[in-house]
Amino acid sequence: MSGDFLLINEVGPRDGLQNQRMAVGVDDKLRLIQALVAAGVQAIEATSFVSPKAVPQMADADALFPRLPVGPRYSALVPNERGLARALAAGVPEIAVVLSATETMNQRNIRMSLAEAQAECERTLAAARTAQLRTKAYVAVAFECPYEGPVAARQVHALIDAMASAGADTVVIADTIGAAAPKAVDTLLREALSSHGAERLAAHFHDTRGMALANAWVCLEAGIRQLDSSLGGLGGCPFAPGAAGNLATEDLLLLASQSGLSTGIDLPALLQAIELAAELTQQPLGGRSHRWLTRQRAV
Amino acid sequence: MSGDFLLINEVGPRDGLQNQRMAVGVDDKLRLIQALVAAGVQAIEATSFVSPKAVPQMADADALFPRLPVGPRYSALVPNERGLARALAAGVPEIAVVLSATETMNQRNIRMSLAEAQAECERTLAAARTAQLRTKAYVAVAFECPYEGPVAARQVHALIDAMASAGADTVVIADTIGAAAPKAVDTLLREALSSHGAERLAAHFHDTRGMALANAWVCLEAGIRQLDSSLGGLGGCPFAPGAAGNLATEDLLLLASQSGLSTGIDLPALLQAIELAAELTQQPLGGRSHRWLTRQRAV
Repeated sequence: MSGDFLLINEVGPRDGLQNQRMAVGVDDKLRLIQALVAAGVQAIEATSFVSPKAVPQMADADALFPRLPVGPRYSALVPNERGLARALAAGVPEIAVVLSATETMNQRNIRMSLAEAQAECERTLAAARTAQLRTKAYVAVAFECPYEGPVAARQVHALIDAMASAGADTVVIADTIGAAAPKAVDTLLREALSSHGAERLAAHFHDTRGMALANAWVCLEAGIRQLDSSLGGLGGCPFAPGAAGNLATEDLLLLASQSGLSTGIDLPALLQAIELAAELTQQPLGGRSHRWLTRQRAV
Repeated sequence: MSGDFLLINEVGPRDGLQNQRMAVGVDDKLRLIQALVAAGVQAIEATSFVSPKAVPQMADADALFPRLPVGPRYSALVPNERGLARALAAGVPEIAVVLSATETMNQRNIRMSLAEAQAECERTLAAARTAQLRTKAYVAVAFECPYEGPVAARQVHALIDAMASAGADTVVIADTIGAAAPKAVDTLLREALSSHGAERLAAHFHDTRGMALANAWVCLEAGIRQLDSSLGGLGGCPFAPGAAGNLATEDLLLLASQSGLSTGIDLPALLQAIELAAELTQQPLGGRSHRWLTRQRAV
């Protein structure tokens, strides 16, 4: 990975749409993804092969994936081996598993103990590797859990290490509820980087407390070159009380360009994709820089 | 200055109210400042001794200052020696001069060349020191000028050096239109710190492009312990097209506390002051963390 290229993993179609009350149909999801591809987005988390009962917004994963336009690097969340089997059947080239860092979050989210969830992730990663898929592992609620409060860094490091040992190509440090602050990110990253190196690490922030962009900067400064974001800040987490929208892709794009990093993304085309997402979800969208960015375009 | 104390200089009563169409009377300004004092705010830029014709919102400076409640460290902007004379008569203990970093900004803002403006600032600083006032010098549009675009770092350093040589106790690097990004802040600070040290430097950010808090983090990390902010993000700059609100005090407070820095400010009381400011200016106020902070309080 080049040091001056930031791989922005667009999670709007999954983390964004998953949190909408409004159902977005498969054709409209494809329109949105086509708009992202037209904007030059290089990596997209397209969907999630979870139980349609648990997450009806993602029930169309099997139908969606085979219809995706060629171009970017696509991934999908899979909760277990059953989800992996569906992902394989749909032609998914890269899967992601999610392991929450606390007992209670695993219990509430997937009704498993942390140990059970870890074993499930490890089995799924092993099976995905056997199938020659690329793999990611999210360590969720890596800073604070909505049920248990602040999460001990030692615990998070143990899980990062476990996911790396289980063969995850990339381990994603995920601030699921937007509780991280720059100092905590910096501290956590230092140790993770010394163990695993920047090329194997990524991060995922929510903007609940307004700190997502500052946290992203800490990552860039530390050498991380893979970050998740969601167009227009679309998103949240239905299972994590208090979670707000994701770090907005346009804010991250602006930060990257101001940091001398390329992303392959065209800003005016991204703003068009955001307009489409706002139309499809019938809600106002836009990150911290959106007003300024859209004004600039109008000039 | 203690390394674990951040002096937040609240500029809402000046930079914030100066930009309002709605006139806020002197009694209401006092109510707002009393609310800030009640919240434990340690430093307040209370007003500006500029021409009442140019800035009618600050026409009550002479009446306001003598009525301020005791407690915090107060300062006022003065544009020149005439303003200084008014400030002295009103009992101001600390004045600030403002020098824009580009020719065009000085011409448009105060109808002086950069050299004339610099000489005016130097004369005013010298006179203030003779009168035994504490002094600050703002180097404005330190990153980008709305008329000339990006500002050369060399130019900014020359002006920082000049203001320090002229005896300013503190030199404030001011991103007047909110164009700074973390990398540029980091680069500018490194050289300024090596010349002048952290104790003599402060910074002032606007959030136009959503980067104010990330820039503030860069300052904290570099050892800066004096930052400007405005309650609820109130503010802007009437003479700088494109400027949006200031870095919000509540966001900076949250960042400070998450960085292990104390500020002396009580969050619930600050939120009350923000409610009052919103009522007085009849506009919705609130920084990036406001929604989360006010929800927390409600729980």
